[in-house]
Amino acid sequence: MLNPQLNRNGELVHLLSIDGLPREVLLKILDTAAPFTEVAEREVKKIPLLRGKSVFNLFFEPSTRTRTTFEIAAKRLSADVINLNVGASSQSKGETLLDTVDNLSAMQADMFVVRHASSGAPYLIAQHLSATGRAHIHVINAGDGRHAHPTQGLLDMYTIRHYKRDFTRLTVAIVGDILHSRVARSQIDALTILGVPEIRMIAPPTLLPAEVGKLGVRVFHDMRLGLRDADVVMMLRLQNERMQGALLPSPQEYFKTYGLTPEKLALARPDAIVMHPGPMNRGVEIDSAVADGPRAVILPQVTFGIAVRMAVMSMLAGA
Amino acid sequence: MLNPQLNRNGELVHLLSIDGLPREVLLKILDTAAPFTEVAEREVKKIPLLRGKSVFNLFFEPSTRTRTTFEIAAKRLSADVINLNVGASSQSKGETLLDTVDNLSAMQADMFVVRHASSGAPYLIAQHLSATGRAHIHVINAGDGRHAHPTQGLLDMYTIRHYKRDFTRLTVAIVGDILHSRVARSQIDALTILGVPEIRMIAPPTLLPAEVGKLGVRVFHDMRLGLRDADVVMMLRLQNERMQGALLPSPQEYFKTYGLTPEKLALARPDAIVMHPGPMNRGVEIDSAVADGPRAVILPQVTFGIAVRMAVMSMLAGA
Amino acid sequence: MLNPQLNRNGELVHLLSIDGLPREVLLKILDTAAPFTEVAEREVKKIPLLRGKSVFNLFFEPSTRTRTTFEIAAKRLSADVINLNVGASSQSKGETLLDTVDNLSAMQADMFVVRHASSGAPYLIAQHLSATGRAHIHVINAGDGRHAHPTQGLLDMYTIRHYKRDFTRLTVAIVGDILHSRVARSQIDALTILGVPEIRMIAPPTLLPAEVGKLGVRVFHDMRLGLRDADVVMMLRLQNERMQGALLPSPQEYFKTYGLTPEKLALARPDAIVMHPGPMNRGVEIDSAVADGPRAVILPQVTFGIAVRMAVMSMLAGA
Repeated sequence: MLNPQLNRNGELVHLLSIDGLPREVLLKILDTAAPFTEVAEREVKKIPLLRGKSVFNLFFEPSTRTRTTFEIAAKRLSADVINLNVGASSQSKGETLLDTVDNLSAMQADMFVVRHASSGAPYLIAQHLSATGRAHIHVINAGDGRHAHPTQGLLDMYTIRHYKRDFTRLTVAIVGDILHSRVARSQIDALTILGVPEIRMIAPPTLLPAEVGKLGVRVFHDMRLGLRDADVVMMLRLQNERMQGALLPSPQEYFKTYGLTPEKLALARPDAIVMHPGPMNRGVEIDSAVADGPRAVILPQVTFGIAVRMAVMSMLAGA
Repeated sequence: MLNPQLNRNGELVHLLSIDGLPREVLLKILDTAAPFTEVAEREVKKIPLLRGKSVFNLFFEPSTRTRTTFEIAAKRLSADVINLNVGASSQSKGETLLDTVDNLSAMQADMFVVRHASSGAPYLIAQHLSATGRAHIHVINAGDGRHAHPTQGLLDMYTIRHYKRDFTRLTVAIVGDILHSRVARSQIDALTILGVPEIRMIAPPTLLPAEVGKLGVRVFHDMRLGLRDADVVMMLRLQNERMQGALLPSPQEYFKTYGLTPEKLALARPDAIVMHPGPMNRGVEIDSAVADGPRAVILPQVTFGIAVRMAVMSMLAGA
Repeated sequence: MLNPQLNRNGELVHLLSIDGLPREVLLKILDTAAPFTEVAEREVKKIPLLRGKSVFNLFFEPSTRTRTTFEIAAKRLSADVINLNVGASSQSKGETLLDTVDNLSAMQADMFVVRHASSGAPYLIAQHLSATGRAHIHVINAGDGRHAHPTQGLLDMYTIRHYKRDFTRLTVAIVGDILHSRVARSQIDALTILGVPEIRMIAPPTLLPAEVGKLGVRVFHDMRLGLRDADVVMMLRLQNERMQGALLPSPQEYFKTYGLTPEKLALARPDAIVMHPGPMNRGVEIDSAVADGPRAVILPQVTFGIAVRMAVMSMLAGA
């Protein structure tokens, strides 16, 4: 089967998942993003690359934060942006996902940014558009179930490259609720494709996926061992709903074992960077002294995230 | 009484209802819409006709789908669009409808797109604007109670003309919950004004309005008889809330009697088109084989709907 | 301590409160607003002063009405506007206020318009931006707790100046729930700074702040005495939640004693103007005959409000 994300010329036409993207495409996205970080520094933060295009933020699962990053990125490219919080409307009227997509496509959409609670929903949409002769409409996955969150993975790679330059000499530790995290999945895919030699997962057994053995990563249940000599520490958000469940004893207990404190961070390399996709639970997965400390690059991640989304959107529109 | 929708020169100043509009005005809207379907095909889908104008989407009843069509249309005309979901705010603070309108008018609104659960609310607003010396602000009815949904009626006419050219030789069948449907009311008005010689209503007695005898239409309770030799089949949405009521036995039963299947559609003319205002209840009022089949023009309806709304907005702004 | 609202050159960098602003700055805002009232009269109501700037409407407390005025003002200045209803998202995910602000700042925000239920929240944000090297991001207080609503105070001053020219000869009466009103606080600050010689407060003892003696105003419990020879009557909204509490007997009783009727208004000067910040409770704090009568300038207040907000935004962006 052909990769549905690329056209015959190998150009990106949808961004559904990092998995399956060639290394060159990943690097091209990062390279394209670089000048967009400068646009944001200008007096007039606007370029006309998507002028007259209609971008639909199609959020079947609410997320003000992620929706905002895409809205900003699209507006800085001069697109018309339409926000659709679909849970609240058509879906409750019993319309199917694909009828909603057909309907919006018929309004001459140019791009769908899709967040959905079900893994694979953006794939289904991209496939459906192809099958119905509307392959010129581009789909960006903004998070689907536990599957993928590719723009988050890409902005993380941009951040790592910005601070560490060479992926092929790094030790990267991912810490936290890997089992439920689409962010972790996209990170592992990207790190692997970009040639990071040592990827570590630090988590309690209950928060690791069953197929962890196949991922080509090293697993640590002891955070102190896992952080040793790491160049990059990628913290994950512990979602509130996990905290009450049977998977974890208590937020306090979790913090004691898997929370990132200055003392634990001291085990990593002295120039290690600390990342977090946000929003943070301070005092649960991360200590404020680390979150606000000199090794944290959590806010630059956000800034790079806008540039990476502008890059993806402009590449899709140009394909 | 003068028609509040037209000024002294016979130009459209508000779109409140199809009822009462001269045939020439209807045709002018359809003619004006035609070039706008081409705008949507361009690389840059934007024209500056409403640049610097403030269009308020004033939705007292939520409807993401309809709001989106107006938002897209206004943005493609370069207007500034403000979405107001009024149920959630001022109205709950006890402000009257007309105080809300006065307030927004004082912000130098140029156009109100109004959806309201009460029939006549857009009329009341237009009257109030006139009576208070602000007749330069235009009102578009985006659906009021069971009364009217004129842009839906207009886009349906655009669709029929696109496929059938001449209104004066057609047999058109409207099928479903006519009693509760503002869409049906606007369709019947438009078909009558445009000279369609045979308008049929196909519905169970419980879903027909009491005044059906005065509408100049033929009534059928047997769908097979009503579809015979029809050129156009206009399905209506069966709203979920009707399905539980005493008006209908069950969705399954309804589908059996009034759902459009390929077998029933075969009784219409071989080149008959099938329309639906959306969102569809597949398996209730329409079979998926019909909805996705070659006779359905349901998605072109949506596309034409954007062009028709652009036409109405630009005519109002130019009046 | 330096005034956080002004830079070293005495230019406005944040608008947090009227309190503490020099008279010249207030007058400069009013002077700057004047030409913006003309922009709104033009065919194309748009000027490029904020083109390419990102304005975030950061509403931790919902208010469609106030949010709309800022959205309109920013769009007429050509800014990109992002609406964030934060109560519904990040805050419920346990993120702190300052993490939300950091996150949005990292998206290269240029301006935050902040409404918050807690007094002082916009100050906290402005301070935090300064302390973290992002003083180039401007904050506008759109209402914080019971503290301040400075743009409302400013538009009220614009309105008074428009109709009365000279502040230094006026008697101004503020009527209603002064205790809970951030609007009243901003009005009193502005009137004092602009040199109004007689400021009166008309309210029942239960709706007056404890520190009323320090405000330099005259207090009246008898509305008839308080209105005598007033040039300006500023009504306050009686919030619904007060009506059920122990503070007031009943809305009917309140109207009898403190509602503005034509008969009571006759005690003020014959050319007195009547103001109200909206939304009005007709028949509670104000009689419809007054609200819709010749002395009311309630709708001009709204119009001037857009111009004043455009003035503030353009002054901040230029500082």
